Amino acid sequence: MGTVGVICKRAAETAGAVASLNTAIKDTALRAMADALLENAATLVAANAEDVERARAEGTSNTIVDRLTLTDSRLGSMSDGLRAVAAQPDPVGEVLQGWKRPNGLLIEKVRVPLGVVAVIYEARPNVTADVAGLCLKSGNACILRGSSIALSSNKAIVEVLQRAAIDAGVPEAAIQLIPDASRESAVELMQAKGLVDLLVPRGGKALIKSIEEQGTVPYIIDGDGNCHVFVDRSADPKMATGIVVNAKTQRPSVCNAAETLLVHAEIADKWLPTTLDALDAKGVEIRGDERVRDLWSKAQPATEEDWGTEYLDLIMAVRIVDSLDDAIAHVNRWGTSNAEAIVAQDIAAAQRFAHEVDSGSIFVNASTRFSDGGEFGYGAEIGISTQKLHARGPMGLRELTTAKYVVWGEGQVRT
Amino acid sequence: MGTVGVICKRAAETAGAVASLNTAIKDTALRAMADALLENAATLVAANAEDVERARAEGTSNTIVDRLTLTDSRLGSMSDGLRAVAAQPDPVGEVLQGWKRPNGLLIEKVRVPLGVVAVIYEARPNVTADVAGLCLKSGNACILRGSSIALSSNKAIVEVLQRAAIDAGVPEAAIQLIPDASRESAVELMQAKGLVDLLVPRGGKALIKSIEEQGTVPYIIDGDGNCHVFVDRSADPKMATGIVVNAKTQRPSVCNAAETLLVHAEIADKWLPTTLDALDAKGVEIRGDERVRDLWSKAQPATEEDWGTEYLDLIMAVRIVDSLDDAIAHVNRWGTSNAEAIVAQDIAAAQRFAHEVDSGSIFVNASTRFSDGGEFGYGAEIGISTQKLHARGPMGLRELTTAKYVVWGEGQVRT
Repeated sequence: MGTVGVICKRAAETAGAVASLNTAIKDTALRAMADALLENAATLVAANAEDVERARAEGTSNTIVDRLTLTDSRLGSMSDGLRAVAAQPDPVGEVLQGWKRPNGLLIEKVRVPLGVVAVIYEARPNVTADVAGLCLKSGNACILRGSSIALSSNKAIVEVLQRAAIDAGVPEAAIQLIPDASRESAVELMQAKGLVDLLVPRGGKALIKSIEEQGTVPYIIDGDGNCHVFVDRSADPKMATGIVVNAKTQRPSVCNAAETLLVHAEIADKWLPTTLDALDAKGVEIRGDERVRDLWSKAQPATEEDWGTEYLDLIMAVRIVDSLDDAIAHVNRWGTSNAEAIVAQDIAAAQRFAHEVDSGSIFVNASTRFSDGGEFGYGAEIGISTQKLHARGPMGLRELTTAKYVVWGEGQVRT
Repeated sequence: MGTVGVICKRAAETAGAVASLNTAIKDTALRAMADALLENAATLVAANAEDVERARAEGTSNTIVDRLTLTDSRLGSMSDGLRAVAAQPDPVGEVLQGWKRPNGLLIEKVRVPLGVVAVIYEARPNVTADVAGLCLKSGNACILRGSSIALSSNKAIVEVLQRAAIDAGVPEAAIQLIPDASRESAVELMQAKGLVDLLVPRGGKALIKSIEEQGTVPYIIDGDGNCHVFVDRSADPKMATGIVVNAKTQRPSVCNAAETLLVHAEIADKWLPTTLDALDAKGVEIRGDERVRDLWSKAQPATEEDWGTEYLDLIMAVRIVDSLDDAIAHVNRWGTSNAEAIVAQDIAAAQRFAHEVDSGSIFVNASTRFSDGGEFGYGAEIGISTQKLHARGPMGLRELTTAKYVVWGEGQVRT
């Protein structure tokens, strides 16, 4: 058994003890972990500097280096995240449903931890604290497998978090980092069947493909975010411009940024050119269908490939549609089930869009950028599920649990 | 694209229409389907007779022939099941949670159908009606893939159900049977990625292995049932005997029948011999550890293999344990996460067993035989999940749904 196997086995052996921790111990530990990140800021920033220096030397892109970099302010956010998780209600033990049967049996469906949760993630070291915090609060042992680019940072963060958690009464193996960020360690983790109860891959297409092909443990896909904004003919024009500009430009590199704008033909003439000017002023490249290009000549031609592309960049595909039905059909054809928005004053249009679009989150008159665990009020997020089973949309504490039926009788037998 | 592909595509294309059916139409259809089974009893029994005759000619075991056989009384139960499903609350549209964020966004988590649900099953034709009914009520298009042994029966049942459903306003492709029960059709179904939203295999180890190795669609494992009864030292002796005899003998061939009996050492001397006599009188072969054999000489020796065996027969493995801890450890080591029971008057023992045993259903002072969708009040069941993600334990209507977040704003953007 390799290092990863040993880590998984330790996690599985300690899962029962983590599941049994009471809320007071978990919350005390989470607050101590939050304090420890601030108290050890200098050490953590120094460890991170090693990663950043190595990344720069290897010619890593500025975007990735930016994601990798820890600052006092980012450590402050990580610390706040742990406090926010501590402030959430404990999901463990919640009675989800309970009912009495005619024969007197009392059936209770009780929320319980999954057991061992593993997350494979990339450059951002804040994920280390978010995952550790959410897993602890939900009573799960966690296994962290960050990328090699952030290894010094992650080691330092986990050491600080572990020490604080152990002092508060949390078992040592409740939070573990795989100290080897090789491809092999990821494969060993995704094949630790019987030891890992849930694997969440937070990475690109290659990682997801590898898990779909080789993974044997249960997993939830945190997939692409080809998000849409549809501006209905009934939209408030100013609100629509505000939402589109925000959804596209506020942080274009993330999965809940909008990639395609659909505009109802009846509003396009009046509304679209000024909005495209506003996007252009923010540096967004517009790729439009023929009707869009007729209205706004700076637009590049959009090909079918554009409808299916998650740019993660200052590029937006724009299409004029003749009806709400065409808009819904476009989203259901090209969307990736992450987040879609409609801007409309007509309640019937809003309700139909919300009902008929098949996606994790539908925003009516709000930016797709709110598809996020923190923005949903979950304190932090373990990822955004783009699948339908178990969890869909932003995943917080509840999504790290399963249920168990406890049935109370007085000697009932079946006849 | 083969026949299965065409069926899957039709189901996916009709899923939106099925999801949009209102409760009144669905319930009317379910009651019409229930009536139609009774009205067409003669036709259905005749179609079934062909299957039974062919099975007998092929030398099929009496147990399987029994499961296959349709009688008026069994048709009555199928019909009652459809009525019970009609009487359940409609899960579609239920707002699971709803909350307002500080920025004014109203977040609603709404229950929605999965889309297309496929079930691969074996001899029993009642599954055809159960699955069709549960899928329709939960707003899903269903694809039925029964075994070749029941093909004439299943074809006749589906024709009757379809006709009644269509008359009530349900789209034709809402209920489809794969008319080819070959191995290839099962493989094609388990690989219909993007068309099938959930596959539930109700079959043996070979089917599950094949899905785990070759399946690309999302699935839920309805696995083995190596169920345990633990008789604590605090047990009411008479109640304990009643539960053990019921759990083992009331219907030994099903997954929620008990396979292993664990007895606390402090009660074993007094309680065990008479209970083993009672089991013996019912024809149960006892395989015991050394301490059991010392108390009751008719017992055969139990080997380690016995602890891990789901007999599905009149055989029971029996072990004396020195403590509640040993009982919990045994169940967690050998159980398959289906159903386990404790018989105890001591509340602390019952609570610890319920809390620490890792299984889908824990019964306190009741038979494991109640681990069943019908017995839980679900009208029928789609299967019993032995996994942790999405669903665990008996699966009814709710387990055939997913959720979607609908977020209502007034122009909110992220800053």
